[in-house]
Amino acid sequence: MELDESRIAQPRPIHILFIGAGAVGCFYGSRLHRPEANVFVSLVCRSNYDTIARDGVQLKTHTFGDYQFSPRAVYPSIQAAAEADNAPNQGWDYVVVTTKALPDVTDDSKDIEPIIKQAPEGRSCIVLIQNGVGIEEPHRKRFPKNPIVTAVTIVSAEQISHGVVKQNRWTRISMGPYSDGLGGTTPATKTLVERATRSTKQLVKLFTEHGKLRDAEEYDEVGILLVRWHKICINAAMNPSAVLAGGVGNADMVTDTELRTHLRGCMEEVFEAAPAILGREFPAKLAKPEQILKSTERNTGGKPSMLVDWEHGRPMELEVILGNPVRIARRHGVDLMRLQSLYALLRSAQRLRDERKKQEVVHEPKKKEPEAVKAPEPEVVVAEKPIEVAEKPVEGAEKPLEGAEKTFEEAPVPSKL
Amino acid sequence: MELDESRIAQPRPIHILFIGAGAVGCFYGSRLHRPEANVFVSLVCRSNYDTIARDGVQLKTHTFGDYQFSPRAVYPSIQAAAEADNAPNQGWDYVVVTTKALPDVTDDSKDIEPIIKQAPEGRSCIVLIQNGVGIEEPHRKRFPKNPIVTAVTIVSAEQISHGVVKQNRWTRISMGPYSDGLGGTTPATKTLVERATRSTKQLVKLFTEHGKLRDAEEYDEVGILLVRWHKICINAAMNPSAVLAGGVGNADMVTDTELRTHLRGCMEEVFEAAPAILGREFPAKLAKPEQILKSTERNTGGKPSMLVDWEHGRPMELEVILGNPVRIARRHGVDLMRLQSLYALLRSAQRLRDERKKQEVVHEPKKKEPEAVKAPEPEVVVAEKPIEVAEKPVEGAEKPLEGAEKTFEEAPVPSKL
Repeated sequence: MELDESRIAQPRPIHILFIGAGAVGCFYGSRLHRPEANVFVSLVCRSNYDTIARDGVQLKTHTFGDYQFSPRAVYPSIQAAAEADNAPNQGWDYVVVTTKALPDVTDDSKDIEPIIKQAPEGRSCIVLIQNGVGIEEPHRKRFPKNPIVTAVTIVSAEQISHGVVKQNRWTRISMGPYSDGLGGTTPATKTLVERATRSTKQLVKLFTEHGKLRDAEEYDEVGILLVRWHKICINAAMNPSAVLAGGVGNADMVTDTELRTHLRGCMEEVFEAAPAILGREFPAKLAKPEQILKSTERNTGGKPSMLVDWEHGRPMELEVILGNPVRIARRHGVDLMRLQSLYALLRSAQRLRDERKKQEVVHEPKKKEPEAVKAPEPEVVVAEKPIEVAEKPVEGAEKPLEGAEKTFEEAPVPSKL
Repeated sequence: MELDESRIAQPRPIHILFIGAGAVGCFYGSRLHRPEANVFVSLVCRSNYDTIARDGVQLKTHTFGDYQFSPRAVYPSIQAAAEADNAPNQGWDYVVVTTKALPDVTDDSKDIEPIIKQAPEGRSCIVLIQNGVGIEEPHRKRFPKNPIVTAVTIVSAEQISHGVVKQNRWTRISMGPYSDGLGGTTPATKTLVERATRSTKQLVKLFTEHGKLRDAEEYDEVGILLVRWHKICINAAMNPSAVLAGGVGNADMVTDTELRTHLRGCMEEVFEAAPAILGREFPAKLAKPEQILKSTERNTGGKPSMLVDWEHGRPMELEVILGNPVRIARRHGVDLMRLQSLYALLRSAQRLRDERKKQEVVHEPKKKEPEAVKAPEPEVVVAEKPIEVAEKPVEGAEKPLEGAEKTFEEAPVPSKL
């Protein structure tokens, strides 16, 4: 019943369900969907359901030009997908989660349970394309027998209107197996690593051969977690600071002497902690804190997604970007001091903001209720003036600075509220 | 020409000028003013000048009952005091600065120069009753020959209307000489220590014998600086965090698990740094971080003064409470990491707030210009439910927890803007 690479050439179809039809879900879904090769992508939408169910997804990409993506099936909710007549007989081969990671608001693993249970126990592979660290744990706990592939993307894309997705730059998606966060220490988790590794290889192959991505990358478990922590190094520093500093963009932060010292301190904390937690050094190709800061100087106009969320009164990904890193490090005896301070302050600020918002609703009952707190897709937006090439690329001048691109991608988008 | 203790009994008058006729200035000024003993206090006022010039100051005190304070002279500005016909012939014996410490807005040492120059060079003793650390340095630089007495007070008092000052609780004022921040390392600075020590002793005697204060305390130079740093331990943790956490009062902060961890981290940083900087341990009687946190749990309704300033759009004492500690520690090779993060974030937030305020003024030219940024007196306000006795007093059950009272004193006051 397990998936394996040879299936690509087999007549048996591969069924992939994307949970979250935002920019990331639509872009990567469109790269995998190849009915002629028996690979079928379906989407669970939210507010954009009507449009996509009727017209499919229109892609305007920097890398592949403009094209239409007509998913095999489109569902208005997970429950609808679970109850649909047109669901695959054996359940889904891959369930790809691309929603914003908000464990303090919703439990993604509980949400996808009806979908996972459509397949025989342990069959569906769960793929998580989300920000943060520690996002795999709830899935691991709820689905102890399912392979998990955890993925980090640096794509810069945005949904400019319902069903219309613009990819601005970058395509890279890095993937690897997740068993127990340590690379598999028991026979049971070792088996999970093996299965998820085969799934990773299959996804890399599908993305590369069918999707024509040049940088779908495979890592081992510790390797992909190091990539996640490296992204934390950037996001946990830049994102909350942009909010707490009163609403400051990326370049303005790194050109303020004190803020730069603070940001470097945050990054260095993570740079020292992650290898201690994971038992392996960062790959040399990943940008060091000073390189990240240097590159960010030119990212004028760029705003971290968390600041955009804050400005629009939306929930921020602070648990997966700050809370989980702090807690995971603590379990390993490492204190992330600056990150803990940012976490404590921003968590409180968000709670008070939400309490005040609730009071406003109570006091002004005629106002329309604010939209449900969970956004349907991650914020992946683009800087006004993205930098093509970092000043001191570490792998080669024609490539972006490895691991530093995330700071260039994020800019304000028109509010949906 | 030097002051000495014996002068109290001498016929020659002692002339004391308070710069800043807020709650602190009026309270301590009223305790020193004894015309019958040849000790004369004069005041430099600001917005409350007309009232005090006409009616004097009305004191409503917890400790000494209600009484009237009629200063020898009242001036509307420092310049007016410097040019007044009724200024003392030999200049002022003591120039006591009780304004809010805002070195990023005004240079107090430059402001008082006309007053200091009324006396022969090096004669006037400068007394600083202000928050923060490093506040003495600009005075030391500008007036290399004047003795400086640096003072920390925990009085809880407020000016409830122009010229009406309410003292709610506490009277303690701790004083000591300031030469070079190290206790005098050269013959010249040793002389300054000796002179300022005599001035400290005289002030303690005046406060005690004339003013009937039971806790006017004398410290040596390193001792009083340790008291300052201990107050930083509390204020640098509580004050900026209350603002950055979205507007949280004292008790609510310490009962939030993550904020408490953050606050403890801030306090411990200072607790470790100050002895390294000053070469002496904190006195055992000063409360430890956990004791401070514990006591603060019951300070419901109390708000740090910085949060009150923030809520009213006023400048905050962030340079003397955060910037100076961070810079002084850095000079001694110590990184105050959490404090540096707070400093970077709050400084940026304040700057952006002020820029937005300016833009509002530009866009709405008919609105009244906001009041000049420098407040005339430090915010010394009181918690709604001050705690009489800390849960675990370190010196005795009838006394407040040493060094922890500051967190109980601060609460919202009606806005003056």
